[in-house]
Amino acid sequence: MKRLTTLFAIASICICASAQQNVGFRQGAVISPEVNEDHTVTFRVNAPNATEVTVFGDWAADKGIIRLEKNSKGIWENTTTVLPSEMYTYRVIIDGIAGIDPSNPFTRRDVGNIFSIFYVPDGPADYYLVQDVPHGNVTQTWYESKGLETERRLSVYTPPCYEKGKKRYPVLYLLHGSGGDENAWLELGHTARIMDNLIAEGKIEPMIVVMPNGNSGKQAAPGETYENLSYRPAMTNQLKGYKDGRYEENFDEIVNFIDSRYRTIAKKNKRAIAGLSMGGFHTMFISANHPALFDYIGLFSAGLNMSTVNFDIPAYSNMTGKLSDLDKAGYELYWIACGTDDFLYQNNLDFMKTLDDMDFEYTYHESDRGHIWANWRQYLLLFTPMLFK
Amino acid sequence: MKRLTTLFAIASICICASAQQNVGFRQGAVISPEVNEDHTVTFRVNAPNATEVTVFGDWAADKGIIRLEKNSKGIWENTTTVLPSEMYTYRVIIDGIAGIDPSNPFTRRDVGNIFSIFYVPDGPADYYLVQDVPHGNVTQTWYESKGLETERRLSVYTPPCYEKGKKRYPVLYLLHGSGGDENAWLELGHTARIMDNLIAEGKIEPMIVVMPNGNSGKQAAPGETYENLSYRPAMTNQLKGYKDGRYEENFDEIVNFIDSRYRTIAKKNKRAIAGLSMGGFHTMFISANHPALFDYIGLFSAGLNMSTVNFDIPAYSNMTGKLSDLDKAGYELYWIACGTDDFLYQNNLDFMKTLDDMDFEYTYHESDRGHIWANWRQYLLLFTPMLFK
Repeated sequence: MKRLTTLFAIASICICASAQQNVGFRQGAVISPEVNEDHTVTFRVNAPNATEVTVFGDWAADKGIIRLEKNSKGIWENTTTVLPSEMYTYRVIIDGIAGIDPSNPFTRRDVGNIFSIFYVPDGPADYYLVQDVPHGNVTQTWYESKGLETERRLSVYTPPCYEKGKKRYPVLYLLHGSGGDENAWLELGHTARIMDNLIAEGKIEPMIVVMPNGNSGKQAAPGETYENLSYRPAMTNQLKGYKDGRYEENFDEIVNFIDSRYRTIAKKNKRAIAGLSMGGFHTMFISANHPALFDYIGLFSAGLNMSTVNFDIPAYSNMTGKLSDLDKAGYELYWIACGTDDFLYQNNLDFMKTLDDMDFEYTYHESDRGHIWANWRQYLLLFTPMLFK
Repeated sequence: MKRLTTLFAIASICICASAQQNVGFRQGAVISPEVNEDHTVTFRVNAPNATEVTVFGDWAADKGIIRLEKNSKGIWENTTTVLPSEMYTYRVIIDGIAGIDPSNPFTRRDVGNIFSIFYVPDGPADYYLVQDVPHGNVTQTWYESKGLETERRLSVYTPPCYEKGKKRYPVLYLLHGSGGDENAWLELGHTARIMDNLIAEGKIEPMIVVMPNGNSGKQAAPGETYENLSYRPAMTNQLKGYKDGRYEENFDEIVNFIDSRYRTIAKKNKRAIAGLSMGGFHTMFISANHPALFDYIGLFSAGLNMSTVNFDIPAYSNMTGKLSDLDKAGYELYWIACGTDDFLYQNNLDFMKTLDDMDFEYTYHESDRGHIWANWRQYLLLFTPMLFK
């Protein structure tokens, strides 16, 4: 019976994908995931021959683990408890093999894994969803980096009004974490939709958002460099150039490129920079090394573990001296956010102690949970309404 | 033992994805796929408890089916015969469940399925790969469609030189097939890379490429409309607006939008249109309904099955009369391409018979294989060097 089922599956996939690619595509009868009205979520997997099917996701309840049970039709099924509004990623583990949900066509890559996704509405996720509002543009472009001696890719969001006039706009530079790239804040961070929706509600100034690639040894995201698929996604500390300071030192060339390409307001009080994890580390050092550039600075779960930093590197040398220069140069907002479960929580507390000792002003936002995209998206929702006022 | 393995797998994924999302990410020891120097491809799947592991891909040899065999380490493995240079999509079927290759982080969505991908170099695929050449920009933007009474999304490629001067450029409008959207020619068609690489070799004129959404009842790709994930990918004939003629009738508003937004050469002899499958059907009717717009017309495996067309719809009425008007208005190239295994092969022969009866000039390119992206990418490589000469 098993053998038969397998052969049947292969035969029916054949029809789809071979001589007549995709023409035979039909949606499966199984619907998964189903986000229920009460904000529970039901998963269903058609795996009649499996002995164990588990869903593993990034929600907090039950540590994100839910074991499915086989019903009389051979469909494995179970329903979560009520989940808070968010965008969630998950994988399905069938007899020990982790993969995407076979019935869900929507996925995201996070570092080296492909996850299935869903949204629980009526809260923060409403800002991550496409709403019936005007939409900005998203462009993938390349700039010539003299400092890093190569062309490098970056993503740019321009607000809906950008194309409708000649007005100039403030700019937010938004930096990804280790293992991320110029697509991360768009794909996982939902930045373009967050901007569209906050602008439509009048909660933020229309702004340009620039998402560069922070892996100084790489030109672009995995699959988008001339190394093609041989550059497999990896945490940044596995890549050449990790914490060599060259990205931070040369960040002004990105600002100059954006100021020359786009209708920006090229002034410190119309420039912000923020980053998550490694991008928070970058943000701290970029703003400290370039005290004339940014009036708004955001550190989201920043990677402030200083034990891995080589302070002989120019970008990292004299940290408190540079922070002191930034203090003298002045800024409008220095915003630090971290979750209490974050493995970098203590590093952030230590950094704030350093700032306290210097009488360096900052605002601290503490959330629950840890080092997760849900926090970074929610920090972006909190941070951007404070900009350019 | 199985139970233990599963629990261990869950535990290690836990570390990655929960409190410290992805921080624990490590690349697996299994490398799959491995494109060997002799252009065979080895697949490996770590599934010690599985009873059957099969790879199903879109190459011709062995109908794309390769059964893996378990080695002494519990790794399922096998190697294809030599494959011609192309980009290939595949899925792994483990005990009857089709999914992506667990060791391959690179995927593409085609209609409703997620496929793993790889490239076999030293031929057409060299044009689909990122090379160390100047890169153009890719923008996702929205235009206001009066005819379809909504904002609609489209993708635009501008050549590398576009940003470096004030020159104006010719435009190719490139249309997707049923089940596709404004991302299909970029993601599966590799259009931006093909353009970058052909421009770098001096084989084509630098041009703007516009990839609209051809599903007249939808604003954008699945996941990119205000329906969000409730609009699951589907073949276009399952969607509202299929073959209602409104897209074809209103195509001039896309041309006008592009001419107003970009530095185009807004002349017939600097405009081309081409499409695959349903997009070939669209191309035929758009060019016939708008004889003053395009001098270069390409039908790739065009969906010319006229038995499903309602000829009472204005865009589809008087087809031969409109083709005759196009003939009188003049054009430089009417290029038809189809594979001998294509289920639309006879429809294309029938259509050419109609053209022959009218003394309507065209060029026919016949390839092997069927209704597959490999053919459409290769048609694009053949078609674009003939444009704007």
